[in-house]
Amino acid sequence: MRNEAFLNTALACLPTPKQTLVPAVRCLRFEKTEDGIRAGETERKPLKKGDRLCFDFGGHQVGYLSLKLGAVGSHPDAPAWIRLQFAEQPIELFERAEDYRGWISTGWIQTEQLHVDLLPCTLRLPRRYAFRYVQLEVLDVSSKYALTVEEAVCTAVSSAEDAGLTPLGSGDALLDRMDAVACRTLHNCMQRVFEDGPKRDRRLWLGDLRLQALASCETYRNPDMVKGCLYLFAALPREDGLLSAAIFLEPEPEADDTYLPDYSMLFVPALLDYYEAGGDLQTLRELWPTALRQLELANAHLKDGVFPDCDRLGWCFIDWSLELNKQAALMGVYLYCLQAGERIAALLADPVRSVLEARWEAGAEAARARFWDETAGCFVSGETRQISWASQIWMVLGGVLPKEEADALMKKMEQTEAVGIVTPYLYHHYVQALLDLGEREKALQVLRRYWGGMVERGADTFWELYDPENPEASPYGGTIVNSYCHAWSCGPAYFLRKYGPDCFFSKDMLS
Amino acid sequence: MRNEAFLNTALACLPTPKQTLVPAVRCLRFEKTEDGIRAGETERKPLKKGDRLCFDFGGHQVGYLSLKLGAVGSHPDAPAWIRLQFAEQPIELFERAEDYRGWISTGWIQTEQLHVDLLPCTLRLPRRYAFRYVQLEVLDVSSKYALTVEEAVCTAVSSAEDAGLTPLGSGDALLDRMDAVACRTLHNCMQRVFEDGPKRDRRLWLGDLRLQALASCETYRNPDMVKGCLYLFAALPREDGLLSAAIFLEPEPEADDTYLPDYSMLFVPALLDYYEAGGDLQTLRELWPTALRQLELANAHLKDGVFPDCDRLGWCFIDWSLELNKQAALMGVYLYCLQAGERIAALLADPVRSVLEARWEAGAEAARARFWDETAGCFVSGETRQISWASQIWMVLGGVLPKEEADALMKKMEQTEAVGIVTPYLYHHYVQALLDLGEREKALQVLRRYWGGMVERGADTFWELYDPENPEASPYGGTIVNSYCHAWSCGPAYFLRKYGPDCFFSKDMLS
Repeated sequence: MRNEAFLNTALACLPTPKQTLVPAVRCLRFEKTEDGIRAGETERKPLKKGDRLCFDFGGHQVGYLSLKLGAVGSHPDAPAWIRLQFAEQPIELFERAEDYRGWISTGWIQTEQLHVDLLPCTLRLPRRYAFRYVQLEVLDVSSKYALTVEEAVCTAVSSAEDAGLTPLGSGDALLDRMDAVACRTLHNCMQRVFEDGPKRDRRLWLGDLRLQALASCETYRNPDMVKGCLYLFAALPREDGLLSAAIFLEPEPEADDTYLPDYSMLFVPALLDYYEAGGDLQTLRELWPTALRQLELANAHLKDGVFPDCDRLGWCFIDWSLELNKQAALMGVYLYCLQAGERIAALLADPVRSVLEARWEAGAEAARARFWDETAGCFVSGETRQISWASQIWMVLGGVLPKEEADALMKKMEQTEAVGIVTPYLYHHYVQALLDLGEREKALQVLRRYWGGMVERGADTFWELYDPENPEASPYGGTIVNSYCHAWSCGPAYFLRKYGPDCFFSKDMLS
Repeated sequence: MRNEAFLNTALACLPTPKQTLVPAVRCLRFEKTEDGIRAGETERKPLKKGDRLCFDFGGHQVGYLSLKLGAVGSHPDAPAWIRLQFAEQPIELFERAEDYRGWISTGWIQTEQLHVDLLPCTLRLPRRYAFRYVQLEVLDVSSKYALTVEEAVCTAVSSAEDAGLTPLGSGDALLDRMDAVACRTLHNCMQRVFEDGPKRDRRLWLGDLRLQALASCETYRNPDMVKGCLYLFAALPREDGLLSAAIFLEPEPEADDTYLPDYSMLFVPALLDYYEAGGDLQTLRELWPTALRQLELANAHLKDGVFPDCDRLGWCFIDWSLELNKQAALMGVYLYCLQAGERIAALLADPVRSVLEARWEAGAEAARARFWDETAGCFVSGETRQISWASQIWMVLGGVLPKEEADALMKKMEQTEAVGIVTPYLYHHYVQALLDLGEREKALQVLRRYWGGMVERGADTFWELYDPENPEASPYGGTIVNSYCHAWSCGPAYFLRKYGPDCFFSKDMLS
């Protein structure tokens, strides 16, 4: 299924990323010690077999590398054979693609082995990389010459324009830094579409898009890009109208065959957010049938008023956790999206509004009846009656509990043993739930502790995954496949700017 | 030093290689057994992580590879990461660049690791390779798709045109095959210049050029290319006029800083050969001062009438042997080149002729006095009085002995313990010496045994190095750095065509 009109609208709205030349600022030498990784500045010396040189581009870049290479000694009489390793974080330089044994495709690892037949030359790598550091290792030259690197330049690309971005200026150093890091994260994920991460998967994901769109409204403001992305999803539904979780742009726009029910439904609030930011009624009207279709399809899956235990419905995202039971959380997402649907129906004076209202009423009641555990004092999920943060967060966002009860639940959870939060994505929804409940101080505390933790660990951009208890671990079995610039973690820019010092956080909450 | 006029002449004479599309003819699977490497044909199946596919291009090619790649399964959601290994001989596929520990630069090893970001695509590799086989190994794809190879095509390049080449047609299957293999060897080394080997070093070497020029006269006939190469050397002498052993063409024509006295002197017979083939008197006249200068510089090195022991003169080629003492052989080269100089001087009526004649007389006498060992009955070399084939061959070529004595010497050597011949380059001079002595049968026997041995071992092109006693050994510590198409071994095409059935070998010598 392919709606050509929607596709044309989409493609016309998508921006062309702009280029900026960013030269490397220095050369570093990293050492792994018991206390972690230490960096020291080094000189650029001619390189023989086995020698390494690591360039620091001063901050996280997304773009194309070019190296001006030369030789000292005799005329090079054999090709220079080099390995390049691109790293968003220094820790990646201490791992090798060959040693990675996890399930993520090693095709994502940003390493190249190249032959340079002719020196001097300017080596322009054709692929785009996400990195702050580039390590060049000479696999071999000949005994008659040594390789020199005269210049290392990144042609950085993004469709976000920094010129129009004013700093947060909260006066709180950590918050200002968190905002800047979040903006850079978003900036580097804004390419032709909003990519989840410029290192991996470089793809437009629906749930991720929603958070990026929110942050971009408060920062780089590119409503056309959001519109284009919404139309892309709407242009490429499954035969039954279900939206894919992700879209490939090349060689032709095509829907991923991954379908995540929560992601599909989040198209509804994403559309509402877009309308509310700019008042584009035509788009709201044109995409509303697509949005409504997601709610209809979800409704058809209900059994006795709730979703069956998630395994039976197909995989569902919620959070990057294999142990998490997602039944209750998905119900919360559904209720949350029904509310957004009601609001759109109201704006368009669509009589379906009353149907959606009735469904929300019935759904909320069924959710309380099925998932609330009186003894535990919280929501449980699945046959094992699992207690998780995910269930509570989405039930609160879905409006299942009155404000006071929801507030009490969130406080109670801090003392309850529960399946925790793995990603900045779910953390984002946690902070949103706290803010919706008016828990400004708690929300700020979570922001400081979680995103601030990444900043303290040297983040230039926010990460796909961060476990404060074990910051160097990779759930993928190797940090070289981690994405250290992942837009679903750009929340701080959204929260600090939308609910910022002047309108939400009180001045005395700033340190 | 750079003679711009000579350089312009050279560049105007050099050809532009022509392109031919050569598709892979089949897929093979090689297995290493106790009896050697066995090949079996296989199907092209979609490839997952770890899978391999080996394409056979039906014969040795020099050119650019393009692969038409596709995917089956879901839309590729991660780059395909592949390794390509190019092999002139199957044995190379059983070695890894990472494991090579020899002194040759591993930059020469024809292996690439590549990421393919977009499928389907036509992957065009920018580098030129020398190969018959290309093995593609999938380092990784994702679990959602498999890689397919729809087409594998080599854009072969050469400045030799097969259209004008008539087969040898001796009626002797082995000789016909040896000729064809030799022609293919030369063909694949004829690029913009005569390269020593298209895999390694891809460079114009003076001693190699001479043998290529001789063979090309009998086969592909491109006198302008020979002329261009002679002018290239002459355009880029050292300050004292000495010619380099090799020339780099890019980025700018430049002399290698390797100087080999035998190679420099061989410019003289190379120039004479060129003149004799086509009668280009202007070139002979213009390049004669350069040629003469090589003889003058050599003459200046004589001490008590002979060259000092070779180590003191700097490295000298003669043969790829570290144990070989080259003092006597170099003297033979000098005498041989003096004779060529005499002939050129005679052609140009240059009075220096008598000087050269006198030098040859004195040199031959000094050589006999210094290097002939009456007890051993052969020439010896160096302080250790080493007996080698190289010394005898070059003394014979230099005309030091009367024909009968030379003939007896060559026969005697077959029963004498001596440092042997390592390369087809020195074997070429051995065959030439035999033919000069009228030893046609013996010459043919050497051709059959030595070059025929390579043919029997599956050579598509003749090798840089071949030891009949140990055909799989590499003096470099790994066959992956061996050059299996090396033009200094194209001699059979020259010998069989120049001294072929009708004019030299008698009919009854053919099997």
